[in-house]
Amino acid sequence: MANTTTPIRVGILGASGYTGAELVRMLLRHPNVEICALTAERQAGKPMAEVFPHLGRYGLPGLVKIEEVHWDKLDVVFCALPHGTTQEVVSGIPHGLKVVDLSADFRLTDPAEYAAWYGHEHRAVDLQKEVAYGLTELNRQGVRKARVVANPGCYPTSALLPLMPLLLGELIEPGGIIIDAKSGVSGAGRDAKQANLFSEVSEGFNAYGVGHHRHMPEIEQELRLAAGRPVTVSFTPHLVPMNRGMMSTIYVRMADGANADDLRDALVKQYEGEPFVGVVPAGVAPATRHVRGSNHCLMGVFPDRTPRGAIIVSVIDNLVKGASGQAIQNMNVMLGLGETTGIDQAPMFP
Amino acid sequence: MANTTTPIRVGILGASGYTGAELVRMLLRHPNVEICALTAERQAGKPMAEVFPHLGRYGLPGLVKIEEVHWDKLDVVFCALPHGTTQEVVSGIPHGLKVVDLSADFRLTDPAEYAAWYGHEHRAVDLQKEVAYGLTELNRQGVRKARVVANPGCYPTSALLPLMPLLLGELIEPGGIIIDAKSGVSGAGRDAKQANLFSEVSEGFNAYGVGHHRHMPEIEQELRLAAGRPVTVSFTPHLVPMNRGMMSTIYVRMADGANADDLRDALVKQYEGEPFVGVVPAGVAPATRHVRGSNHCLMGVFPDRTPRGAIIVSVIDNLVKGASGQAIQNMNVMLGLGETTGIDQAPMFP
Amino acid sequence: MANTTTPIRVGILGASGYTGAELVRMLLRHPNVEICALTAERQAGKPMAEVFPHLGRYGLPGLVKIEEVHWDKLDVVFCALPHGTTQEVVSGIPHGLKVVDLSADFRLTDPAEYAAWYGHEHRAVDLQKEVAYGLTELNRQGVRKARVVANPGCYPTSALLPLMPLLLGELIEPGGIIIDAKSGVSGAGRDAKQANLFSEVSEGFNAYGVGHHRHMPEIEQELRLAAGRPVTVSFTPHLVPMNRGMMSTIYVRMADGANADDLRDALVKQYEGEPFVGVVPAGVAPATRHVRGSNHCLMGVFPDRTPRGAIIVSVIDNLVKGASGQAIQNMNVMLGLGETTGIDQAPMFP
Amino acid sequence: MANTTTPIRVGILGASGYTGAELVRMLLRHPNVEICALTAERQAGKPMAEVFPHLGRYGLPGLVKIEEVHWDKLDVVFCALPHGTTQEVVSGIPHGLKVVDLSADFRLTDPAEYAAWYGHEHRAVDLQKEVAYGLTELNRQGVRKARVVANPGCYPTSALLPLMPLLLGELIEPGGIIIDAKSGVSGAGRDAKQANLFSEVSEGFNAYGVGHHRHMPEIEQELRLAAGRPVTVSFTPHLVPMNRGMMSTIYVRMADGANADDLRDALVKQYEGEPFVGVVPAGVAPATRHVRGSNHCLMGVFPDRTPRGAIIVSVIDNLVKGASGQAIQNMNVMLGLGETTGIDQAPMFP
Repeated sequence: MANTTTPIRVGILGASGYTGAELVRMLLRHPNVEICALTAERQAGKPMAEVFPHLGRYGLPGLVKIEEVHWDKLDVVFCALPHGTTQEVVSGIPHGLKVVDLSADFRLTDPAEYAAWYGHEHRAVDLQKEVAYGLTELNRQGVRKARVVANPGCYPTSALLPLMPLLLGELIEPGGIIIDAKSGVSGAGRDAKQANLFSEVSEGFNAYGVGHHRHMPEIEQELRLAAGRPVTVSFTPHLVPMNRGMMSTIYVRMADGANADDLRDALVKQYEGEPFVGVVPAGVAPATRHVRGSNHCLMGVFPDRTPRGAIIVSVIDNLVKGASGQAIQNMNVMLGLGETTGIDQAPMFP
Repeated sequence: MANTTTPIRVGILGASGYTGAELVRMLLRHPNVEICALTAERQAGKPMAEVFPHLGRYGLPGLVKIEEVHWDKLDVVFCALPHGTTQEVVSGIPHGLKVVDLSADFRLTDPAEYAAWYGHEHRAVDLQKEVAYGLTELNRQGVRKARVVANPGCYPTSALLPLMPLLLGELIEPGGIIIDAKSGVSGAGRDAKQANLFSEVSEGFNAYGVGHHRHMPEIEQELRLAAGRPVTVSFTPHLVPMNRGMMSTIYVRMADGANADDLRDALVKQYEGEPFVGVVPAGVAPATRHVRGSNHCLMGVFPDRTPRGAIIVSVIDNLVKGASGQAIQNMNVMLGLGETTGIDQAPMFP
Repeated sequence: MANTTTPIRVGILGASGYTGAELVRMLLRHPNVEICALTAERQAGKPMAEVFPHLGRYGLPGLVKIEEVHWDKLDVVFCALPHGTTQEVVSGIPHGLKVVDLSADFRLTDPAEYAAWYGHEHRAVDLQKEVAYGLTELNRQGVRKARVVANPGCYPTSALLPLMPLLLGELIEPGGIIIDAKSGVSGAGRDAKQANLFSEVSEGFNAYGVGHHRHMPEIEQELRLAAGRPVTVSFTPHLVPMNRGMMSTIYVRMADGANADDLRDALVKQYEGEPFVGVVPAGVAPATRHVRGSNHCLMGVFPDRTPRGAIIVSVIDNLVKGASGQAIQNMNVMLGLGETTGIDQAPMFP
Repeated sequence: MANTTTPIRVGILGASGYTGAELVRMLLRHPNVEICALTAERQAGKPMAEVFPHLGRYGLPGLVKIEEVHWDKLDVVFCALPHGTTQEVVSGIPHGLKVVDLSADFRLTDPAEYAAWYGHEHRAVDLQKEVAYGLTELNRQGVRKARVVANPGCYPTSALLPLMPLLLGELIEPGGIIIDAKSGVSGAGRDAKQANLFSEVSEGFNAYGVGHHRHMPEIEQELRLAAGRPVTVSFTPHLVPMNRGMMSTIYVRMADGANADDLRDALVKQYEGEPFVGVVPAGVAPATRHVRGSNHCLMGVFPDRTPRGAIIVSVIDNLVKGASGQAIQNMNVMLGLGETTGIDQAPMFP
């Protein structure tokens, strides 16, 4: 671990959303960090205690507009802004600062693909090229050297952690992968939308974005790297009436001769010694409540009754390993700090 | 509709569980029915008001043991007993009575398959042969003539209603069907089990019975009838932190030349005029909250990005169309009553 | 019951909110009623299926603006508009129509009190005088003769049903009444507000409007009538993470010589034969889940350990007896129909 | 802070319940502590990973029976056993160990009162006398010197923290205090009981133990100390459909001449500098979600409209400040460690 007698000065852009609050929650426990700037647009001028009463007792700086941030007084910036607005903002951050971007803006490396899915040209194509994809366990070297890290989406994190090693190891076929994913409601953000009202969501379950969710190209981009050829996945997200948690139930076709134990063994080997990723024993189904509030990902592998079929179940907390926790993990790697520093809380159950 | 100047006398065996209570809730509104007997084992001797306070204001008969039932004072029996205990009970009911059995005991028609999945020989093999499978919309003739109806499981109901017509119409392939299913907690019953405590279930999501759930052979039995050959499905149930509601997200491979619109059109045609089954327009995803408390099944069809792939989303209320509502629907058909009588409540939202 | 060969033609103003949807849900089962007009402001022009998918299968009229309503084709109007906008609207409805107003606009009879609590002069003071307060069980004669009924608020309904008979019977003192009330989230309406998002409400509990909620003067107005002198209550509402349901836990001081059994007996006597109001036995605590989806009110009385103290627990479904169910009950009374017609559904549990 | 080169060896008796798991969650982050023994009765012999999968990645000792504990290898024992069984167990722990008892067994100091409320003689009357009541902020000196601390109940903690200073300061009257309390479901424990099933609790709200809850004498015992004379409170607990969180809405009568601001000022002064107890500004209502997962207690004071009436709202996490967090806080005080060590997590929202 780096010797850090002077604290690392951190700014959070977009601190009035759930991922912003979650960054604050964890960074407050990070021994090497001082939170020096918090921004918000509509809520600028308010104290954090008003926007997030649960964070009201920590002497945090008040919310300001991005234009008011003194970049020279910061070492690291977490960017938790809405998709689309991030490109110009990150481009404008002085190069002496490290940036972890939690938006989708720098996750796709191909400008054409970005334009196709987001409906406009990318506004920072040059920057796009130097960004590292921050799926930490599978790209530590890239993250270590990066100035800007694109923090993965929550759905991609839950799906790629099990799928990448299996594709790289040629234990599963690249074709026919089906990802049936389920998320808690906090993933929909804090904006006031009728669809996310308690009475609309509670006591119900629904699919959304069927066939056209924007996390699809991000998943396929990474799987293509692992498979060495284009991969088209079937990906269907669903909304679960709970605050936090995400599960991907993944249906794969195993390579000729492989069985579910082979897949599990490969994942066990891949993630041996990893503090945040675990493989549960045969016959056990991981549940989102077993990772709530933690930076953990748990995965299990089951044989299916169909020929060469296997089922993989992977769970994370969408706000932690799926967003703010992994962002801090990436910061730790970028700065040479202990990778678990500040994010080693055990899950909270019940 | 039959002329019913004298009410139909109904008994409910197993009235202390959720499906029993749900039968009572709906039968109280059924104009042709009088509830004459309610049984329970451990709770026998208690008034219904104590076991289900929400039903305390209706002058219902008290709970008795099955041995105390006067069969000659009943016309119809709903059997909502635990799986396995039902076989002897139903065998012992005098033949003058109609029976709708909500357990799994008479759903599988092949004694060998029953024995394989339940671990013991079926104890009423002869009776098993004369039972009609009560997926009402697809087996009205069978139900009409039956003395005993096996009410389908909740998962099979949600999956078979869309799949059967598509297989019969040869619009989808029998191979590679994946059913990713999600259920509310009431499906787990009212027995005190740690796994179903509020604090264990709330704010979480999990898969269960991965690869070996007993609704699988029931689904495959019916699909085999539609396809004309053996069908092996992949079926994975999940538990959603809500009381009621069930969704099957079904991944299918379309027949050569077919597209999602063809599938939707076929389902629209199949269920035209059906009071309880509806097909939502293209682009709309049905949600469990849209059928809560009702006997409705709603289904939608989506094209998938994978070659020849389509996604079908089907929702029901597991306690109504998935259990007690369909049971009353079957009774109505068996007795020549209007099929919607007593079960035409609109869904309750929020 | 009135002879109703021609259906009663009903319009619902403000049909895009939860109370509007709930009126539709129940009126669809009302044998004497035809829903002929549904209005909404921002959603005008849309079919009901889009605004409330759960009501999409009933051939309902599309949503129109109030200006487009043909009053001459209606017999009864339910007015479920936001507080404040209702006064002019109701004033403009031709006098041949009966009106049940679910807003707060006509509940307070004193224009000065209205102005004090709502910050502006009442805009239909003359009309205000002829309106009947629609707490049906306690004002049947008034409702029967009324052209316009002010449907009570949900909190007042739950509190007044037990308190009014006890005050009238001089079994409790008018001073020192404390009403600690708890409501499900649907009471907050369907407008998109951050405070009502699932992630803000779920897994939490809070008080709101402490010391200044607008249901307070409504409660005090009615209690004053019962006590024959001014009454000041302490009333604190709380928000429960559930869709429906309301409980008032009421702390009272009993009259000299009275005990909890006397209070319970008085309530039993008051509500004997009432189809919708019940008193639970000593020692039993009524729960909101026992009335969910129904027009029931259940109440229980407990002795307190403090001198002359008693605790009354009263539960309703805030959207049914607390709003739309009682509104239909009032319509039934106004029209001479059977009082339970269309609203006799049993509670839905779980 | 003590110099702790050798870790403090901790044992948890009753580690298979929610408070046990919560102790583990927090002690895992405590830098001075090593968890050396975990006991359970029925679950003895199992690894913790099986009983609490969320704690499966920490190399914890397996569950053993109490008889198998080596007391000489422990420094501190947390006793999270069911009420009633604790007395003999604690009596048998060697005197060299410090004990924090989370049960109710040692909270009442008067053997007669214990017998009256629990139906049997106390089995360790001598020990009862030397126990300190662990409401840390108000009894630090007592806790510091104690060998055995009785950790307060969750309801008493939430009520006493605001009430004790106000009574001591003679700002409120001892008579007529009404505590309307609401708790999340985890307070009911992990035993399989029908009443605590998800489908029984979700989407509902109920009072329980009205008039005879066992936390009442504990509250009155402490208030008597503050008031200098017997105090009888009205206390009614309710069950909220959420996992964690507790609110006490407290109705008090202020002393002659005092107002709500005086009460708030007194509480602000009392808890100035306290890391875990805060007073929110006038007009703000604290919510349970603002303290979830943390050791915080937040309180607010409101004027009531009734003469001399005031309303106090106090919130805690029932499993943390209401149980395991305060238990660790007490251990820290007993051992001279920094009081916040290991329990300084910020609340988790959403």
